[in-house]
Amino acid sequence: MRMYDLIKHKRDGRELSDEEIRYFVRGYADGTVPEYQASALAMAIFYQGMSSRETATLTMEMAGSGDMVDLSPIEGIKVDKHSTGGVGDKTSIAVVPIVASCGVRVAKMSGRGLGHTGGTLDKLESIPGCSVDIDEERFFKIVNEVGCAIIGQTANLVPADKKLYALRDVTATVDSIPLIASSIMSKKIASGADAIVLDVKCGSGAFMKSADQAIELSQAMVAIGEKVGRSTVALVSDMDQPLGAKVGNALEVIEAIDVLHEDAPTDLFETCIELAANMLTLANAGTLEQCRALAREKVASGAAFEKLCEMVTAQGGDSSVLRDPSRFQQASLTRVVRAPRTGYVSKMNTELVGTAAAALGAGRETLDAAVDFSAGIDLARKTGDAVEQGEAIATLFSSSEERLDQGERLLLEAYEFGDEPVESRPHFLARVSKDGIEKLA
Amino acid sequence: MRMYDLIKHKRDGRELSDEEIRYFVRGYADGTVPEYQASALAMAIFYQGMSSRETATLTMEMAGSGDMVDLSPIEGIKVDKHSTGGVGDKTSIAVVPIVASCGVRVAKMSGRGLGHTGGTLDKLESIPGCSVDIDEERFFKIVNEVGCAIIGQTANLVPADKKLYALRDVTATVDSIPLIASSIMSKKIASGADAIVLDVKCGSGAFMKSADQAIELSQAMVAIGEKVGRSTVALVSDMDQPLGAKVGNALEVIEAIDVLHEDAPTDLFETCIELAANMLTLANAGTLEQCRALAREKVASGAAFEKLCEMVTAQGGDSSVLRDPSRFQQASLTRVVRAPRTGYVSKMNTELVGTAAAALGAGRETLDAAVDFSAGIDLARKTGDAVEQGEAIATLFSSSEERLDQGERLLLEAYEFGDEPVESRPHFLARVSKDGIEKLA
Repeated sequence: MRMYDLIKHKRDGRELSDEEIRYFVRGYADGTVPEYQASALAMAIFYQGMSSRETATLTMEMAGSGDMVDLSPIEGIKVDKHSTGGVGDKTSIAVVPIVASCGVRVAKMSGRGLGHTGGTLDKLESIPGCSVDIDEERFFKIVNEVGCAIIGQTANLVPADKKLYALRDVTATVDSIPLIASSIMSKKIASGADAIVLDVKCGSGAFMKSADQAIELSQAMVAIGEKVGRSTVALVSDMDQPLGAKVGNALEVIEAIDVLHEDAPTDLFETCIELAANMLTLANAGTLEQCRALAREKVASGAAFEKLCEMVTAQGGDSSVLRDPSRFQQASLTRVVRAPRTGYVSKMNTELVGTAAAALGAGRETLDAAVDFSAGIDLARKTGDAVEQGEAIATLFSSSEERLDQGERLLLEAYEFGDEPVESRPHFLARVSKDGIEKLA
Repeated sequence: MRMYDLIKHKRDGRELSDEEIRYFVRGYADGTVPEYQASALAMAIFYQGMSSRETATLTMEMAGSGDMVDLSPIEGIKVDKHSTGGVGDKTSIAVVPIVASCGVRVAKMSGRGLGHTGGTLDKLESIPGCSVDIDEERFFKIVNEVGCAIIGQTANLVPADKKLYALRDVTATVDSIPLIASSIMSKKIASGADAIVLDVKCGSGAFMKSADQAIELSQAMVAIGEKVGRSTVALVSDMDQPLGAKVGNALEVIEAIDVLHEDAPTDLFETCIELAANMLTLANAGTLEQCRALAREKVASGAAFEKLCEMVTAQGGDSSVLRDPSRFQQASLTRVVRAPRTGYVSKMNTELVGTAAAALGAGRETLDAAVDFSAGIDLARKTGDAVEQGEAIATLFSSSEERLDQGERLLLEAYEFGDEPVESRPHFLARVSKDGIEKLA
């Protein structure tokens, strides 16, 4: 087998055989297939696509390129949850304890923030003492005893995907549905999930700009999951504006606590319930409707919040901070951003909101940079809201005036105002499962 | 400017600006643009193509990436000739002296053979003493005094193209019309040509398999030439069977001599006249019709043959060998290949004929291998010819029985026989110039 022929086959629109895909992934991972052949193949895939069989094979080969986490020491069906990334997405911190409080164990591995999107690990670390660097044995013990844990990925998870993603990132071959789908699913499968709930974001703050693209990506991922024996459901949700009101690490943990106190913005609250219900039903906890009711009940009773406190304690964190969020690290400076005119918020550039939060200190530009846990944004107005000139539309939190200036400039750029009231689109747009696409909006 | 954006622009079907193309070629040549970005761009160009402006800019940037030969010390319009490569193509050795004998100087730089195609330099070196490693000063002196010379390319000619071609060769991005066109034209322009006649081959022994592809490539090259001020004409000719009867180094020189003695197969003879006439007319020696007559006259009078002898003498060769070809180095072994059946030659796989000649010793598999000047094939039957079982269809020349066995096997594989007579297609299929496409068949 020669890599040249493999590139040519894909270039000319032929399906690659399983052997060819295996040859590529293994050769690329071990360095015998050079970067320049991998990038040529990625570009050919960008144009020619991949069949669902090819995508599933690519996924499994990448998953198998490094450690495969074996979650069998944990009892029951292990359901994982993945979001394609957005701004203000703190759902994992609320959803994981909701599901666990309903009796379904969740062993979750998460990532860090980069660029304009935040990461669950950074958010959790804003809780004093809370660790995400936990070895497998202790991870399993916490999940079995408490019901859930959220830790960092092991270092050797899907090295082939890590290498390929880095290459795609510099060769304009990231936005290919089969390559995105196999990249995401390979990580979920290597993490040991039996079933997977995907939160596929679309809109100005997401990688997928349109609902159609997000549905296409969802279908590709569901097809992979079903092909390799992992029940998979994808929810397509709106990211044309940030999720909830708060963006930043400690700020988002506080808003996740609000969810568990039934005190969060509706878009965020309903997203958490829906994600939890879909995870529960995949774990055979009942019908989707029953699972929604169960999730709401566990939130209302306070059981879900107590589960979060237990998990944080087990991970070494000070859960008393969760009970009194005023004890989170506070930003040294705040600034109120005011509406430049009277009217309605007609649009938000969500990516710019994320960039503003990163500029305030909440994000990192390189993987080894530190984040300021207290930095971020609390949005008082979102799309569709009426505003009066001079009224507060957001509060910024940061450590320096320079950062506040930059954050304010970026945030104001993110807002668009108009004269007419606009209706923001429904939060959930579609649900994609093996049964097909259910359009929700 | 970032290479990433440049790849993305081309990927999405946008035209690259001159600045972008310049950025790419210079960065790639100096190593700041890595191979994996260049291969991704090449694959995007494979799918999206390039406008004639982009192709012309790419050509000129590549031409300028190394030495640009300045032919101004040579008087008159310098017309170059290029063949896209085939089997049995010995035209340069006859055409260059024909043109020079008509009073138009030819300063030609040629290449060596590789794979199944031969190279003019190897053929010339089969003439005892004849050198092709001649410095610029002596080259110019010979051309000015004798009227023509054929030497090897300088080492630093179009290094960007050399590097890019090697990359395309291993990433399945060779067969892109704009990339092939700019690669060929950049070499001609860097070699200092004022005007260019291209012999674009199509068929089983050529890179372009169909006449349509060959015409498309011709149009792209003519467009480049006209855009950068070099009058360019392309002749599309048949390579569904070898040109002439002889394949091999000394054998092809002998057949070029036959051309100059009006004693060569018609396809070869007419190709040489046509190429010479097109070169002459680009050098303002008259109309195409007048130039054809002039070329025929100089061959008939023996002036063209005398010019070849003068050129070889000037390049250090023993021209007495040209006058008595029996004095060329002779192969130690010969073998007659016989028809396996009675019928007609219905088809020839020209590439296999070239491979057979290479196996006999006439070619090289790596650039630094030596060639056997005496090895090769003399074809007695070509497409359309009737054959009797057991009759000689070719004679092989080589240095060992093993090579003869291999050559015989390959050559027999190259022939197809049928029961019905077939008409081979006309040799010239089209002429492409700034005035458009003139279909000749």
